[in-house]
Formats: sequence, structure tokens, C-alpha cells
Amino acid sequence: MSAKIRLYVEHPLGQGQSVDLTREQAHYLFGVMRLSVGGQVALFNGQDGEWLAEVAEAGKRGGVLACLKQTKPLQMPPDLWLLFAPIKKARTDFIVEKAAEMGAARIMPVKTEFTNSERIRQDRLQAHAVEAAEQCGGTFVPEVTDLQRLSHVLDTWPDGRQLMFCDEAEVGSALRLAASEKNQPWAILIGPEGGFSDVERARLTGLPFAHVVSLGPRILRADTAAVAALTLWQQALGDWS
Amino acid sequence: MSAKIRLYVEHPLGQGQSVDLTREQAHYLFGVMRLSVGGQVALFNGQDGEWLAEVAEAGKRGGVLACLKQTKPLQMPPDLWLLFAPIKKARTDFIVEKAAEMGAARIMPVKTEFTNSERIRQDRLQAHAVEAAEQCGGTFVPEVTDLQRLSHVLDTWPDGRQLMFCDEAEVGSALRLAASEKNQPWAILIGPEGGFSDVERARLTGLPFAHVVSLGPRILRADTAAVAALTLWQQALGDWS
Repeated sequence: MSAKIRLYVEHPLGQGQSVDLTREQAHYLFGVMRLSVGGQVALFNGQDGEWLAEVAEAGKRGGVLACLKQTKPLQMPPDLWLLFAPIKKARTDFIVEKAAEMGAARIMPVKTEFTNSERIRQDRLQAHAVEAAEQCGGTFVPEVTDLQRLSHVLDTWPDGRQLMFCDEAEVGSALRLAASEKNQPWAILIGPEGGFSDVERARLTGLPFAHVVSLGPRILRADTAAVAALTLWQQALGDWS
Repeated sequence: MSAKIRLYVEHPLGQGQSVDLTREQAHYLFGVMRLSVGGQVALFNGQDGEWLAEVAEAGKRGGVLACLKQTKPLQMPPDLWLLFAPIKKARTDFIVEKAAEMGAARIMPVKTEFTNSERIRQDRLQAHAVEAAEQCGGTFVPEVTDLQRLSHVLDTWPDGRQLMFCDEAEVGSALRLAASEKNQPWAILIGPEGGFSDVERARLTGLPFAHVVSLGPRILRADTAAVAALTLWQQALGDWS
């Protein structure tokens, strides 16, 4: 049995553990969700799986939950990064939410030559990833990194990580892989709304670890492209099959 | 060469055709986009492909465009319907936008037993589909139908149309098809956020034309599920391969 309310906490979870609530968490559980002493919540912290917990103390400014039993083990997503160029605020929020739901392990905003956004609010995007994990029943929260230049990310690319690069200028190639590439870490790169520059495209297509993939004959918005690319990858290589 | 501004018009397009603009279209082209006489626009009407047109007359309350040449033939999407249960307003708008981008031919809001929405604004949703078609470079606009009961839609289901039914309670089955099912018309059904009722699930799984498909181990929001399901279908059966 698992409780309907799921809450991410930055606290160890285990048999006999009690968890102190922050003011915001207490407001959410007791003010918004109307829980009282004895009410049940599912907790996860990204490390110890999901635990059923019971309200032991409830106050306006805080409270205590007591862990009862583990209801799910930690389920790590595949080792998949999602790199994307930030767009308008609402759609950037959506990309982060979707990436967390779809099981990306790490979400990396990158600045390309045609990216308009100069900055992102990393803390706000991380909060969206937490909320999506609470919603989708996951036990893991992907890390949202700070905005980095795409060129820098490629300069420091880790050995052995493959890159699925979704280019709207590309026609007709699906994801075809050598067997040896299947059990490696991966990343997906979604281009900016204005496309990649010629210099970027030349560099990307020349990378030995890059796989150019088509997302069909229509131009997709970046948030649509992110979900579509994650679907293709999860189906071919991830935990959907 | 195709113009950057794309506009859907309800007007025949062809060599020598001139197209009268509505007040809203004139405001958009001349007020918002700052076009003037001689400026170029790409037009489509869902029937005659895409035409490059030039501003012949520009006014505050109207204007005239002259068709110059066809830049794309009409590209019909596959014969695929998307059925979904309406959710919160912003996410319903997103589903319509995504379905149009991803190449659904018809978008059908359906009322299931656990659907909260009693009504939709069909005209507003149709406008979202038009905007998505303008944005994604398509030459076809999917029809958005009025809200119907799922039970009624199933009662009047057309012979030979297959149904891909995405059930979050389902574990582990991917889309596996007999060759004979590949060249038939299809529909995708995305469940409501509260899931299907037991009665609905029993009916759906018993339908001879239904294919139950899993969308992975995490619970997806309805808008995410719509894009993921359209991706799987387009990749396996549609115009992505």
C-alpha cells in the first residue's frame, strides 16, 4: 500500500527514522492537504527508495513524520542526460518537468550560438524536477545543472558517453546502433528553436560519439522534441523495453 | 524559398489567386509583424499545399495578398486520430498543440467516467491546432471535434480502425503488430489523469481492434503521454520511418 501524497525530503529515510519538516512542507501537508496526526505520506529522498510515513507531530511552522516501512526500492533511471537550449520560461519549465517524468538522470541547459536566454533560474528548474518526481511516482530526482556553453560541454565530454543529436535539418535517419553502443552512458541534445549554427552542426556531426536522429517531417517545438527524443531513446535503449 | 511568416487562411490558393485578409489577419501581418506592400508570407488552407504570397494591399482593417507560387504540396498526415480526456485548461491546450505538431489527423476530446471536465471550448482548441500547424510547417490542420462520451465513440467505432490504448496500469507490453494492421486507419487513446474505470478498462481490453501499449515504468501526465504515444506510433507505423 502506498500513500496518495508523495513528498521529496532532504533527510535520510529508514526503519525508525523520524523526519523533521520544513515550514513549507508543514504548510503543504497540514494547511493545503489537511493531514493531521496519524495521516500517511509517501516519502523519498533520491537515495533510500520510497517510505510510507505517518504524521507524528503537526504544527503551523513544522512537524515530524515517522517512517513506517519501505514501499519501493530506489529505482535509478538509465544513465541518460538531456541537454537542451533554454527557451521561453514556461516551455523551459515544461522541458524540465517532462525530462524528469520520462526518466532522464541529469538535465543540462546549454547555451548554443542561437540561444536567446542568457541565464536560467537553476533553483526554480530544480524545484520543477522535484515536483515532477513527486507526481510521476519516481524515487529519484534528476539533477538540473547550471547553464553552460554547449562548446564547453563538448570540450569536456566524458569518454564513452554516446550522444543522440536531434537536428530538424536532418531528414530520414532513425536511431540505428551498434550493439556495443547499447550499454554505454548516453545523452540527448535538443537544438534551440532557431536551429544550430553551421559551425555547431559541423562540429556535432563530426563527433565520433554523435548519432544524428530525425524526429519526423514536421518541425517540432523544443519541448515536443524533448519528449519525442526521450521516447525513442527509452524505447530503444532504456527502461521501457 | 519559403517565407518566415506562415498563415492559415480559409480561402482557395492557386496561381493568380488573391486572398482577402480578415481584420485579425491584417492586424497580425501589418500591426504585429510589420509587413508592408511587397512583403512575403507563406499561406496554407489545409487543401492546396503551401503558397508564397506577397502583400498587394495593406490596411488597418484588411488587406490583400497575391499568390506567387506553390512552395509545398499538400502533405496529409497519416490517418490517425488522437482521443484524450480533457484535463486542466493549459494542459488540454498543450495536448492539442502537440497532436497537431506530431501529425495527428483528427483530435477528439472524450469524456470518460473519471473525466472532470464537463465541457471544452472547441473553437479555442481548434485555434490552437491552427497555430501549431502554422508553427510546425505543416500544410494540414487537424480537425478538433466536440467533446463526446468515450462510450459513444466506441459504440460507433468505424470498421477497420485500430486502437492503441495507453494504460498506465499496464506493464511491459510494447506495440507489436500483425502486418495486416499496419496499413489500416488508427487511433490512439490517452487515459484521464485518474485512470480508466474498471468497467471502461474491461471494455477497452476486450475490443478486437484494441492494442494495449505501455509507456514505461513511470506515471506520465496526460500531455506527456500524448507526445510519447504519438512518437511510438509515428516511428512504428507513421511518416517518421
